[in-house]
Amino acid sequence: MISLEQARARILAPLRATAAEVVALSEAWGRVAAVPVRARLTQPPRDVSAMDGFALCAADGRLGAVLRVVGSAPAGHPWEGTLRPGEALRIFTGSIMPAGADAVLLQEDAEFAGARVTVQEAVAVGRWIRPAGQDFASGDVLVQAGKRLNSRDIGLIAAGNHPWLSVHRRPRVAILATGDEIALPGEPIPAGGIVSSNSHALAALVRACGGEPVVLPVAPDDPASLAAAAAAASGMDMFVTTGGASVGQHDLVQSALGGLQVDFWTVAMRPGKPVIHGQLGDVPMLGLPGNPVSSLICGIVFLLPAIERLSGLPGEAPPVVQATLAAPLGANDQRADHLRATLAEGPDGALLVTAFARQDSAMLGVLARADALILRPPHAPALAAGASVPIIRLDALGL
Amino acid sequence: MISLEQARARILAPLRATAAEVVALSEAWGRVAAVPVRARLTQPPRDVSAMDGFALCAADGRLGAVLRVVGSAPAGHPWEGTLRPGEALRIFTGSIMPAGADAVLLQEDAEFAGARVTVQEAVAVGRWIRPAGQDFASGDVLVQAGKRLNSRDIGLIAAGNHPWLSVHRRPRVAILATGDEIALPGEPIPAGGIVSSNSHALAALVRACGGEPVVLPVAPDDPASLAAAAAAASGMDMFVTTGGASVGQHDLVQSALGGLQVDFWTVAMRPGKPVIHGQLGDVPMLGLPGNPVSSLICGIVFLLPAIERLSGLPGEAPPVVQATLAAPLGANDQRADHLRATLAEGPDGALLVTAFARQDSAMLGVLARADALILRPPHAPALAAGASVPIIRLDALGL
Repeated sequence: MISLEQARARILAPLRATAAEVVALSEAWGRVAAVPVRARLTQPPRDVSAMDGFALCAADGRLGAVLRVVGSAPAGHPWEGTLRPGEALRIFTGSIMPAGADAVLLQEDAEFAGARVTVQEAVAVGRWIRPAGQDFASGDVLVQAGKRLNSRDIGLIAAGNHPWLSVHRRPRVAILATGDEIALPGEPIPAGGIVSSNSHALAALVRACGGEPVVLPVAPDDPASLAAAAAAASGMDMFVTTGGASVGQHDLVQSALGGLQVDFWTVAMRPGKPVIHGQLGDVPMLGLPGNPVSSLICGIVFLLPAIERLSGLPGEAPPVVQATLAAPLGANDQRADHLRATLAEGPDGALLVTAFARQDSAMLGVLARADALILRPPHAPALAAGASVPIIRLDALGL
Repeated sequence: MISLEQARARILAPLRATAAEVVALSEAWGRVAAVPVRARLTQPPRDVSAMDGFALCAADGRLGAVLRVVGSAPAGHPWEGTLRPGEALRIFTGSIMPAGADAVLLQEDAEFAGARVTVQEAVAVGRWIRPAGQDFASGDVLVQAGKRLNSRDIGLIAAGNHPWLSVHRRPRVAILATGDEIALPGEPIPAGGIVSSNSHALAALVRACGGEPVVLPVAPDDPASLAAAAAAASGMDMFVTTGGASVGQHDLVQSALGGLQVDFWTVAMRPGKPVIHGQLGDVPMLGLPGNPVSSLICGIVFLLPAIERLSGLPGEAPPVVQATLAAPLGANDQRADHLRATLAEGPDGALLVTAFARQDSAMLGVLARADALILRPPHAPALAAGASVPIIRLDALGL
């Protein structure tokens, strides 16, 4: 039996980012840049006004001066002449400053009548002018390779004049539920059977992490069916099974998947001790427990970082924050525990966490109502209320 | 000029959740339940074993007792007989407990040879049995209406035997960039023009919030083009414009959108003072500034809650947390400010926030590099390093 951290490191070690594909900018939100994105132009391309007002020579901008307005240059309609002493040009936010001008008289500091403008507040050289390249210069890296693109990145890349982007292909993850007792939702349920929840919960998790789930047909508990299903995982970026509980998963997988090179098959964690990791031909294989809670929690601690790694991200442990225990916790045994818990805000703004009384790994309702998992390392001592504990915020992760 | 809070309340007030549509469970991740989802079965349907071992009568389970093994019942293959005194049944995790049995002898507490099993640890009535309905009973509400479905909800709903779900239709948000100076990325840029970043950044934000963006063709700054574009927004759940900077947006919108009932057109905030809100026929209209930073920040503070409200969620202000200032801040004026800032973890684990020195609303690069927005209420006093300030975590929101 190996530790959770060892297991995660061994799952992540062989994973490499998927190859790149080209997508339209409008489809790139949430994708991971495969190459650095460099600006294809300078922004602003030339010195522009930051305000509505008048461009002029700073030397002319003394209080009481009266200037001749030679034209108007809305953004998108630059004035091509050269401003001479005694002249002013009507400009607006984003207008290109005309040649000869080095100052902006704000609209609210100007009295404008006919073709004359009177300076009512002295101007300063360069004030209210955005210099060319203030935002970025052509060739600047706007977004580094390996960044997941948010809406601000999309805006910046658009401004950098990219209609297409190279992003990592979404990792394709084949998901196989096994077990004679398993029926898909809405289908006839065999005697003593249960409805399959694991494969679609894991598929949703894969989607939440930016992967592309491929849910395989349920395989009954016999080696031939399992082997046939495994063949369908060829070419996938990862093959995830979720075990029927009826037969020792390890034995079945060992016998069914002839070509499987097993790396490990038990992890010192709860829920989720029987986790198989290996390689089936070119495809990394992760065998998760059949209990729905175990399956999803193993998905969060192992599959989430694996999909991130495959997506071109660093792929580390799920983000952990500290919270304050609202009630005491008993000592832990030798297995890393993941207690389903609720969060509340304390009177002083502290994040209070309370473990559910029942932690049965078959209780999916409790997991669905949980806001967080309290992480209890092996042999963690008993803790009093008020102690600080590490938690994974499920609510914040959209899992 | 109204306050940011008043503006948000007036934007949200007329919005109603979209009607429901039916989607497959496998497409329901991230959608919002339109009706309560009730369990269609009881889980577990009958008493089941929580472990691998033997079912027996508790009275027989004393240390040293030898029982006759009458069969084996893997999960999915229930045993139909009735267990009699002196008998035991081989069972596994999830196996239905046979009639007559009221205890489980764990595999590791049993010596099993031929058809005999010897009790090596006394059993207790009910121990290691999951009672019928422990997870949920038929008719229980698994997920309330108005909840955005995460991967755990999907698992629970699958277990409750639902292949189809009623969810709120994704709000369709028409996005119109206006301005003579605007070109789409990769297209020819007019003299003095800039590449349109607002519409695709806002489209990504709409997508991040669970909406469906409809990006309209860019409209030049003339009333006829604007009016034609506005007609294209008919039937949408919301119409968002992002203004060309070349002409006073308010005047243009007023003249172009004959049917527009304006609610307000300026908000005491920075960046983003010129925000128009109104109603164009049946369609709520939100006019955002043309500056890319202003446009996106207004998107975060107004459009995000609006899309949530349209999606069937409560739709409140974006989530705010407290952080510790790493450097002092000057006093604020009368406009609610949103300072672009970076986050770091302090030596004591505190969340440290530092505002960028340059807060120009044309600097999209700074916004893209920001982890958070520091919220500065109107007339907020100067603050020393170490003070606690409210922030919006952009990184955590995927915006």
